[in-house]
Amino acid sequence: MIDKQQAITGEYIVIRALENGVTIIGLTRGRDTKFHHTEKLDKDEIMIAQFTEHTSAIKIRGQVELLTKHGRVQNKG
Amino acid sequence: MIDKQQAITGEYIVIRALENGVTIIGLTRGRDTKFHHTEKLDKDEIMIAQFTEHTSAIKIRGQVELLTKHGRVQNKG
Amino acid sequence: MIDKQQAITGEYIVIRALENGVTIIGLTRGRDTKFHHTEKLDKDEIMIAQFTEHTSAIKIRGQVELLTKHGRVQNKG
Amino acid sequence: MIDKQQAITGEYIVIRALENGVTIIGLTRGRDTKFHHTEKLDKDEIMIAQFTEHTSAIKIRGQVELLTKHGRVQNKG
Amino acid sequence: MIDKQQAITGEYIVIRALENGVTIIGLTRGRDTKFHHTEKLDKDEIMIAQFTEHTSAIKIRGQVELLTKHGRVQNKG
Amino acid sequence: MIDKQQAITGEYIVIRALENGVTIIGLTRGRDTKFHHTEKLDKDEIMIAQFTEHTSAIKIRGQVELLTKHGRVQNKG
Amino acid sequence: MIDKQQAITGEYIVIRALENGVTIIGLTRGRDTKFHHTEKLDKDEIMIAQFTEHTSAIKIRGQVELLTKHGRVQNKG
Amino acid sequence: MIDKQQAITGEYIVIRALENGVTIIGLTRGRDTKFHHTEKLDKDEIMIAQFTEHTSAIKIRGQVELLTKHGRVQNKG
Amino acid sequence: MIDKQQAITGEYIVIRALENGVTIIGLTRGRDTKFHHTEKLDKDEIMIAQFTEHTSAIKIRGQVELLTKHGRVQNKG
Amino acid sequence: MIDKQQAITGEYIVIRALENGVTIIGLTRGRDTKFHHTEKLDKDEIMIAQFTEHTSAIKIRGQVELLTKHGRVQNKG
Amino acid sequence: MIDKQQAITGEYIVIRALENGVTIIGLTRGRDTKFHHTEKLDKDEIMIAQFTEHTSAIKIRGQVELLTKHGRVQNKG
Amino acid sequence: MIDKQQAITGEYIVIRALENGVTIIGLTRGRDTKFHHTEKLDKDEIMIAQFTEHTSAIKIRGQVELLTKHGRVQNKG
Repeated sequence: MIDKQQAITGEYIVIRALENGVTIIGLTRGRDTKFHHTEKLDKDEIMIAQFTEHTSAIKIRGQVELLTKHGRVQNKG
Repeated sequence: MIDKQQAITGEYIVIRALENGVTIIGLTRGRDTKFHHTEKLDKDEIMIAQFTEHTSAIKIRGQVELLTKHGRVQNKG
Repeated sequence: MIDKQQAITGEYIVIRALENGVTIIGLTRGRDTKFHHTEKLDKDEIMIAQFTEHTSAIKIRGQVELLTKHGRVQNKG
Repeated sequence: MIDKQQAITGEYIVIRALENGVTIIGLTRGRDTKFHHTEKLDKDEIMIAQFTEHTSAIKIRGQVELLTKHGRVQNKG
Repeated sequence: MIDKQQAITGEYIVIRALENGVTIIGLTRGRDTKFHHTEKLDKDEIMIAQFTEHTSAIKIRGQVELLTKHGRVQNKG
Repeated sequence: MIDKQQAITGEYIVIRALENGVTIIGLTRGRDTKFHHTEKLDKDEIMIAQFTEHTSAIKIRGQVELLTKHGRVQNKG
Repeated sequence: MIDKQQAITGEYIVIRALENGVTIIGLTRGRDTKFHHTEKLDKDEIMIAQFTEHTSAIKIRGQVELLTKHGRVQNKG
Repeated sequence: MIDKQQAITGEYIVIRALENGVTIIGLTRGRDTKFHHTEKLDKDEIMIAQFTEHTSAIKIRGQVELLTKHGRVQNKG
Repeated sequence: MIDKQQAITGEYIVIRALENGVTIIGLTRGRDTKFHHTEKLDKDEIMIAQFTEHTSAIKIRGQVELLTKHGRVQNKG
Repeated sequence: MIDKQQAITGEYIVIRALENGVTIIGLTRGRDTKFHHTEKLDKDEIMIAQFTEHTSAIKIRGQVELLTKHGRVQNKG
Repeated sequence: MIDKQQAITGEYIVIRALENGVTIIGLTRGRDTKFHHTEKLDKDEIMIAQFTEHTSAIKIRGQVELLTKHGRVQNKG
Repeated sequence: MIDKQQAITGEYIVIRALENGVTIIGLTRGRDTKFHHTEKLDKDEIMIAQFTEHTSAIKIRGQVELLTKHGRVQNKG
């Protein structure tokens, strides 16, 4: 139950897709780092994602605007 | 009961629909990530949503203005 | 009793109705998300609402000015 | 007794009536949301009100200037 | 005794009377909200008042300058 | 003894008398609110006063400059 | 011993005498408020004074520059 | 389980690849420091990475824009 | 031993002598306030002094520049 | 296990190599201070390094841009 | 052992010698205040010194630039 | 083990050598203050050093740029 609470107040990032087919990949936490989840976004879809007990890294493929606590970044040419 | 308290003070985001048919999708927390709830917004409807013990990610389809702790973002062309 | 305390210091939002018939809908917390309360506001009425143990999301229909910790937003054309 | 302490340091809002007959309505906390108290303000009367264990929402009818932690708002035309 | 401590560090507001006969009314905390204390201020008298275990709302009648943590407000025409 | 500690770090206000005969009145904490102490200041005397377990409100008569955590206020014409 | 610690980190004020014969009076904490200590400062002497378990108010007679957490104040004409 | 919680709220950095073939290398925590994981990014891919119990240093090869709590840095000529 | 720790992180003030023969006097904490230590500074000597369990007030005689958490003050004509 | 948690949220610094052959040397914590790890960076490689239970000092040889909580510093001529 | 930890994160000051023969004197903590350590600095040497369980005051003789949490001060004519 | 954790998050300073032969000297914590470690830096080498349980003061000989939480200082003529 403690785990659930932490999750509720955990850090999140905001991803806005700038093209179709953006891929958001959750990488597993632990000794082995592998894909554990993949999410697809089409143009103008937005995802607000938290780190969880299963996710220690998030990889984004495709053009997005990203909002984080360290500021914004955009990878569109 | 501890869970309820956390929830009361948890983070929230603000979504303002800029067109009809905006969809807000709660994705489940845990090993498996799947849809657990979908909410529809029409133009100018506003939703204030919290992360909960069941939600680790929120996906938004359609044109919105989004207010988060990392700032505002709009996906209208 | 712990629940009552938290509630007293919990987050609140401020909603100012800009037209008659604004609807504020509390959505239930938990696995099932459904309406648990609806409040009606007429033009220039103001509501200050907290998240509670029963509410994980708030939906607003109608033109309002909304004050939150992430800033202000207005949905009037 | 713990309840009393929290109350002493709890959040408050400031309401300044801009006309006679302003109504401040405390809505009950809990599964059922109903009126539990109504307060009347005449022009230029000021009320400083806290959330309490019995109040989860406050509704204001009539023209006021409202001071909250999210800023000021006025509903006078 | 815990109650006394909290009180010492509790929130306070500052009221400066701008005319004779300003009335400051403490409303009781609890299910029933009624007057429990009234204080009179003449022009240029100042009152620094805390919320207490017996007070959940303060009502002010008459022209004042009010200093609170949400800013200043004045009800003089 | 806990009471003594709190007192040492408690909130204080600063009162500078702008005329002779300024009166600072401590009002009692509790169900009954009455005078429990009166202090006289002559012109240019300064008093730094804390809230205590016996004082829940402070009333000032006479022209002063007052420094509080909500800012400064002066009641001299 | 706890008392000693608190004292070490407690609030202090800074008093700079602007004339000879400045008097700094410590008033007792508790039901009875009376003088418990008097300190004399000559012109340009500086005193850095803490609130203690025996002092709930400090009274200053004579022209000084005073530095507090609420700002500076000077009572010289 | 405690470990999982910490991880959820842990520090993260944001890496945006500015060319193909960017390599992100996790170095092990402990007496011996060696590679424990390598991740490849192509141009415009973004990685949001946390420090974990297995990672005490992160090495980046290739041109990137890096967002950290100490600011942004770019290694493109 | 707790006392030692507190002391290490306790508040300090910085005194720079602007003339020969500056005197810094530590006054005792407790019911009786008397001198417990005197330190002499010559022109341009600097002293960084902490409040301790034995000191509740510090008195400075002579021209100095004083740095405190409430700002700087100088008593040189 | 406690050690692992702390590590996850520990301070880090960011080192960007401005030439080939930059050396980052971890010095051991404890009575004896000696090299315990050396890392080589080529031009434009970036390292994000944490202090660990084995490292109390980090020495950098070669031209770098360094980002720390005290600001940035560059040693390029 | 607790003592060691505190020490590691304790307050420090930075002293830069502006001439040869600067003396930094640690004064003992406790009822008796006497010298317990003296350190000599030549021109342009820098010392970063912490308060410790043995030091409650630091005295500096000679021309220096001093950096503290209350700002910088220089005693060079 | 507690000691190790503290160390990981402890304060650090950044020293950039501006000439060859800069010496960084760790002075011991405790009743006796003596050298316990000496580190040599050549021009443009950078050292990031923490206070440890063995170090209560750091002495720097030679021209450096120093970054601390109280700001930057440089001793180059």
